Amino acid sequence: MHEPPSPSAAPLPDSQHAAGYPLYPWITTPTLLIDETRVRRNIRRMVERTQRAGVRLRPHFKTHQSAEIGEWFRERGVHAITVSSLRMAEYFAQAGWRDILVAFPLNVRELPAAAALAQRCRLGLLVDSTAAVAACGAAIRTPVELWFEVDTGYARSGAPVADVAPFAALLEAARPFAQLQVRGLLTHTGQSYAARAGAGLPELQQATLAALAKLQAALSILPAAQGLRLELSMGDTPLASLFDARAPIDELRPGNFVFYDWMQREIGACSEEEIAVALAAPVVGVYPERREVVVYGGAVHLSKEALPHAGGGLEYGRVAPLHAHGWGPALPGAWLRSLSQEHGIIAADAATWQRNLAALRLGDLVAILPVHSCLTADLMKEYSTLDGRRIAMLRLEDGGSGT
Amino acid sequence: MHEPPSPSAAPLPDSQHAAGYPLYPWITTPTLLIDETRVRRNIRRMVERTQRAGVRLRPHFKTHQSAEIGEWFRERGVHAITVSSLRMAEYFAQAGWRDILVAFPLNVRELPAAAALAQRCRLGLLVDSTAAVAACGAAIRTPVELWFEVDTGYARSGAPVADVAPFAALLEAARPFAQLQVRGLLTHTGQSYAARAGAGLPELQQATLAALAKLQAALSILPAAQGLRLELSMGDTPLASLFDARAPIDELRPGNFVFYDWMQREIGACSEEEIAVALAAPVVGVYPERREVVVYGGAVHLSKEALPHAGGGLEYGRVAPLHAHGWGPALPGAWLRSLSQEHGIIAADAATWQRNLAALRLGDLVAILPVHSCLTADLMKEYSTLDGRRIAMLRLEDGGSGT
Repeated sequence: MHEPPSPSAAPLPDSQHAAGYPLYPWITTPTLLIDETRVRRNIRRMVERTQRAGVRLRPHFKTHQSAEIGEWFRERGVHAITVSSLRMAEYFAQAGWRDILVAFPLNVRELPAAAALAQRCRLGLLVDSTAAVAACGAAIRTPVELWFEVDTGYARSGAPVADVAPFAALLEAARPFAQLQVRGLLTHTGQSYAARAGAGLPELQQATLAALAKLQAALSILPAAQGLRLELSMGDTPLASLFDARAPIDELRPGNFVFYDWMQREIGACSEEEIAVALAAPVVGVYPERREVVVYGGAVHLSKEALPHAGGGLEYGRVAPLHAHGWGPALPGAWLRSLSQEHGIIAADAATWQRNLAALRLGDLVAILPVHSCLTADLMKEYSTLDGRRIAMLRLEDGGSGT
Repeated sequence: MHEPPSPSAAPLPDSQHAAGYPLYPWITTPTLLIDETRVRRNIRRMVERTQRAGVRLRPHFKTHQSAEIGEWFRERGVHAITVSSLRMAEYFAQAGWRDILVAFPLNVRELPAAAALAQRCRLGLLVDSTAAVAACGAAIRTPVELWFEVDTGYARSGAPVADVAPFAALLEAARPFAQLQVRGLLTHTGQSYAARAGAGLPELQQATLAALAKLQAALSILPAAQGLRLELSMGDTPLASLFDARAPIDELRPGNFVFYDWMQREIGACSEEEIAVALAAPVVGVYPERREVVVYGGAVHLSKEALPHAGGGLEYGRVAPLHAHGWGPALPGAWLRSLSQEHGIIAADAATWQRNLAALRLGDLVAILPVHSCLTADLMKEYSTLDGRRIAMLRLEDGGSGT
């Protein structure tokens, strides 16, 4: 696999190892670097996009899981958020957020904790069965918002969009409970990850919008919906990235866009310059005969999320040189071909090896652009800014289900 | 995919949900259950196996990462351990271990921390280049043991076993430094994971032993090896499980055997009854029309390690009923077909659905047998015994590279 020489594929700066790897001297082990400028730009762009679309941005905070990064959203006027667990909801409630949607199917074992949290903030819960609605009504006595989950083709959770009856039943089940405030219909079109910006995403967006509108209309004329305006909530970064004119929905819940990653770049939902986190990984082995470099950075740092590699096999991340103010463009001819618990193996084509990797020495750092930044952040449990400031995120010690 | 009815595939006990899921009432979120009896039995069997083989057991503690579980090894006479990071070495040194091998290629950025730790215990480091040896000699002034890593075909780290010259160079590089005590040759035959007990593993074991013995003999006659006895250290659970008579090596470093997992069962390195951890996952959705159950238990709990599923696609874990004293045999016709960040989707064949899953209700717990228990434990960061006692493991707060 030969790539044309590219000005973007600069050699790793010789200064990095000439004087004993002076770059990022505070880094001793795999470290998740965050480029704050890029993160703030990603936030601003999504805020502006949703403003143009005339929808509420309810960003999914499961990607960054950080109270401090949450503040960067608040500074842009965001006040409603999405999370994927009750513990995350508790953590962000503690950080002052007052409109929190748990976009994960109701876990009835956590109802006592949900009831406690509903007293502290405007809490949204996700249900798709009358049993879940009834359990909420029995356990939560203060106002709580319910979103009905709609399966628009992803086949994970939710009732199928084409069938009105189950949603009519949900409306009926909620009626006896005055504290249950039905907010609307919510879908996660996770099948967008198998589509591409130029092929499939626009069609998926249109089909989803049409199906949701049809379900909304059918439900609105039911007696059980009297006095309700059922809102529509859509999620996922690939589809959210397409909204750029007034949209016939009420809110968008993208999460990944705050960091993006190599998968989003493959989908076409971002450019490489928007990827805002990278794992700084120390080189621990250089093997010229195999044209491979082994780094300290494995499955417990990056996760085993992988993409098909163009030349066969899988790739677990892309490789970029680190410089004093972040990381350079990814090397087109190098990829992470394998991960063990702590090892990452970088493979390269002959030209990339010669130009960019052959000069690496033990202790040099390379940047790994993750395939799936949500899982990488969840594993790393903290960030380092480019100037070495630590940014904390949710830990096992935070929150706690309160039961 | 129909499976014959089997007495082992008992329905999930009706008592679990009849009175409001009374089983394991302390569990509200995904919880890694540990069957202490099975763990202690796994430890005892490996201790006995290595005694029969006449080799030192230096178990790899990266699988459990727990000081408390470490004590269960100590009770069986184990006193030398393997870890995969310096932070893990510091954590176990703190827990009283005094003979610790870091079986990961030397990370020169952590040399100051390694030097500090070498003053507190007998520390072994892994090198495969003269640069690494020289860096050790310069940075560590107290006695420290070096193992030379040998690549016996896995092509991750280490110098190739067939070539004597690089190892001769390592011996020469260590000579000027009196504090560097060359201990021997170490290999990790990770390719064993692609083999099977009945096809490939015995051949791999024999080939590895022969190649190591040849290298050891060639090195022993070198002037630089005078006065040294180069020990031989082999790792990995699949190969370790084969040793059952006197072995021509000095130590074995298996780790996974403490818990085993579905991958080891597929390899043939364990029976299902030896798998000693399972994720207790609350049911959050039941979808009869798709014959699928959605559980609270996803990539951030289990990891995305997967095996090929016999019927096509991948499987991320196996499903077993939970009962009052642990989990029953895995259901032959059910598997985890997909994982999102927090969701797991269980699919089933028609017979298994009808017999074992159709009666599940929200809040019931199922047991997920992980594909790769090392990664699952690393993600979960703590265990619960079957009677609800919490067992702690290494956290970000523990250890610390000390630099």
